[in-house]
Amino acid sequence: MKLGIVGAGSWATALAHILSKNFQSVILWARDKDVAENINQNHKNDKYLPDILLNSNISATIDLEEIFRQDIIIIAIPMQHIRETISNIKLKEEKMIISASKGIEIGSLKLPSDVIKESLDIPEENIFALSGPSFAKEVAKELPTALTLAGKDIQKAEKLQQLLNTKTFRIYISEDIKGVEIGGAVKNVIAIACGASDGLKLGNNARASLITRGLYEMTKFVPIFNANPQTIYGLSGLGDLVLTATGDLSRNRRFGLLIGEGYSVEEAIKKINQTIEGIETVKAIKQLSEKYNLELPISEMVYKVIYEKLNIKKAVDLLMNRELKKEFL
Amino acid sequence: MKLGIVGAGSWATALAHILSKNFQSVILWARDKDVAENINQNHKNDKYLPDILLNSNISATIDLEEIFRQDIIIIAIPMQHIRETISNIKLKEEKMIISASKGIEIGSLKLPSDVIKESLDIPEENIFALSGPSFAKEVAKELPTALTLAGKDIQKAEKLQQLLNTKTFRIYISEDIKGVEIGGAVKNVIAIACGASDGLKLGNNARASLITRGLYEMTKFVPIFNANPQTIYGLSGLGDLVLTATGDLSRNRRFGLLIGEGYSVEEAIKKINQTIEGIETVKAIKQLSEKYNLELPISEMVYKVIYEKLNIKKAVDLLMNRELKKEFL
Repeated sequence: MKLGIVGAGSWATALAHILSKNFQSVILWARDKDVAENINQNHKNDKYLPDILLNSNISATIDLEEIFRQDIIIIAIPMQHIRETISNIKLKEEKMIISASKGIEIGSLKLPSDVIKESLDIPEENIFALSGPSFAKEVAKELPTALTLAGKDIQKAEKLQQLLNTKTFRIYISEDIKGVEIGGAVKNVIAIACGASDGLKLGNNARASLITRGLYEMTKFVPIFNANPQTIYGLSGLGDLVLTATGDLSRNRRFGLLIGEGYSVEEAIKKINQTIEGIETVKAIKQLSEKYNLELPISEMVYKVIYEKLNIKKAVDLLMNRELKKEFL
Repeated sequence: MKLGIVGAGSWATALAHILSKNFQSVILWARDKDVAENINQNHKNDKYLPDILLNSNISATIDLEEIFRQDIIIIAIPMQHIRETISNIKLKEEKMIISASKGIEIGSLKLPSDVIKESLDIPEENIFALSGPSFAKEVAKELPTALTLAGKDIQKAEKLQQLLNTKTFRIYISEDIKGVEIGGAVKNVIAIACGASDGLKLGNNARASLITRGLYEMTKFVPIFNANPQTIYGLSGLGDLVLTATGDLSRNRRFGLLIGEGYSVEEAIKKINQTIEGIETVKAIKQLSEKYNLELPISEMVYKVIYEKLNIKKAVDLLMNRELKKEFL
C-alpha cells in the first residue's frame, strides 16, 4: 500500500515518518519547492521538523495530482486552505481520504470532512478524521501517542485502524467524525486562553479551570453538528485540549503566552511565524455563536482580545466576575 | 459567622486564609501542638504552608470540640483519618458540615460525605463537599481559583456559595455530592500514573492520553455511587485531574515522577514525607473494582506497581499493547 499526504508541515511530516513503517512508500505534497527538495535530497524537513532523519521510503513532490494517485490519502494542511488546494482534483477511483486538518471554515462554517467531501465530490463513507493529543515532534520521535480515527463506515475504519496502528502510534476508532472534528477545532481557541492565563502568571488552578470550562464550551457545538457528546470527552476533545493547553510545543498556546506577557497580537503572530489555527477558528466560532445564539464566554474573550483590542487583563476580570451560578445549566 | 476547620495541613490553612476575608473568625484544629502554637504566635504555618502570613482573625487549637462549636465546619484531614478523628463528637445543634477531604475509605469503600454522616450521625442534607482544581499555595496567594460546592439541599448550598465566594475564590454549586467526591478520589491515582509517565520521559502526548483514559476510568464509578455522569467533566473531576496530573505542586504527581525516575516506592514515600492520598485510595479502588467487576487498566497498573512490585516500564508496555478497540464501549 502507498500513502500520499497533502501537506509537508510538521504534522504532515511526522505522520509520514511514523506511517512509513506500515506503508511501502509515503509521498508528501509541498507547496514550497525548497521543502520538497530538502526532503528528497537530505531526508530532512529542516523548515518544519528539524532533527528528524526521515525514513528512506519517504519522498516529496509539488505535483498534487501525484498524491491522489496513491492508495490512501491524508490531508494535513491549514483548514482555511483545504478548499482552494484540492478543488481541482478529479478522483478517478474510490479512495479513502483521511483528514488530519483541524478547524472550521470561515464563512461556510463547515468542518474539514465536509469541506473535503464538497471539494472532491466523494461519498461521506470514504472520509475519515484522525485526531488526538499528538505533538508532531513526539510522534516523530516514536514517543507513545494515542489517537482517534473516526468515520461513518466503521468497517472501513477498522481496516484503516489496522493499517495505521504502530507500536507507539495507537489508534482507537469511532463513528463520530463530526464530534472528533469539533474537538480539534475548538481546542485551539481554548489553548490561546490558557496560554494567556499562564503568560499573566495566574497559576495552575486558573489554567485547570479554563480547560474545564473550555471543554464545557466545546460541548455547545455538539447539537449543531449532530455529534455524539461522549466524543468531546475522548482523545480528540479533552485529550487534545489538555495537550494543547499545557504543552509548550503548541503554537496556539505560545501565541496566548505572548499575549499574556504583554506582546501585541501583531508582534505575537510575527514571533510564531507559522499558522496559528485558533486565530482563524475563533472567527468561525464567533459566526457560529451569533447564528445559533451560543454562550461561549472564553471564546468570546479570545475573539475580543484578538480582533477588538480588548485588554487581556480586562478580559480575565470579566471572566472571573460573571454571575454566580450552577456548574452545569 | 464563625468558621471552624478540622485540620491544619496546607489545604486547611489555605482555606482558613482565603475564607477569613468572609468570616468574623476562623479557627483551625491541629493534631500537632507545635503547628497550633506556630499559627497562634506567629500567624504562620511553617510546616505546611510556609511563606504565607495568615490573616489576624485566624487561630488554632488542639481541642477538637471547640471547632464544632463554630457556625460552619470544614473537614480537611486525610481521608483515612476522618472516622477515628470525629467519631466522638456529639453535635448539640444542627450545623452545616463541609468536606474538603478527598478519597475513599479502605474497607467500608465509602466516600467522605458518608463517613462524616455516619461518624457525626447527622442528616445528609447538612453535608456538603467542596472540591476542584485548587493547589493550596495558589489559593493562599489569592490567585484565581474555581471550585464546586455540592450538597443535596440546593437552597443551603446557595447560601454557602454566597458565604464562601470571594473575588479570587469562585464557587459553583451542584446537587451531586457523590459525583464531586468520586472526582476528588480517583484523580489522585491517575495523577500518580501521569507523574510516572513524565518520570519515564514519555512525553506530553502520552500524558494527555493517560489523563483522557483516566477520566474514562473515573466515569466507571458513577453508577456505583448513583452519581451524575456530567459532574465527572466538571471542576471537581476533569478540572482537578488536569491540575493534579500536570502541576508539580501535587504530591501524588511527584510520587509518580519519582517512581518513573527509578526510585523505589519506599524511597519515594520517604522523599515526599506527607500524606499521598492516591496510595491509599488505589487500595479502595482495587477493592471496588473486584466487588463490582470494573475494568480500570490505569488504576490496576498503579496498584500493581505500588503493592505488587510490578516494574513501571513493564506496566507502561502492558497499557500500550492492549487489544485495539473502539474508544468508548
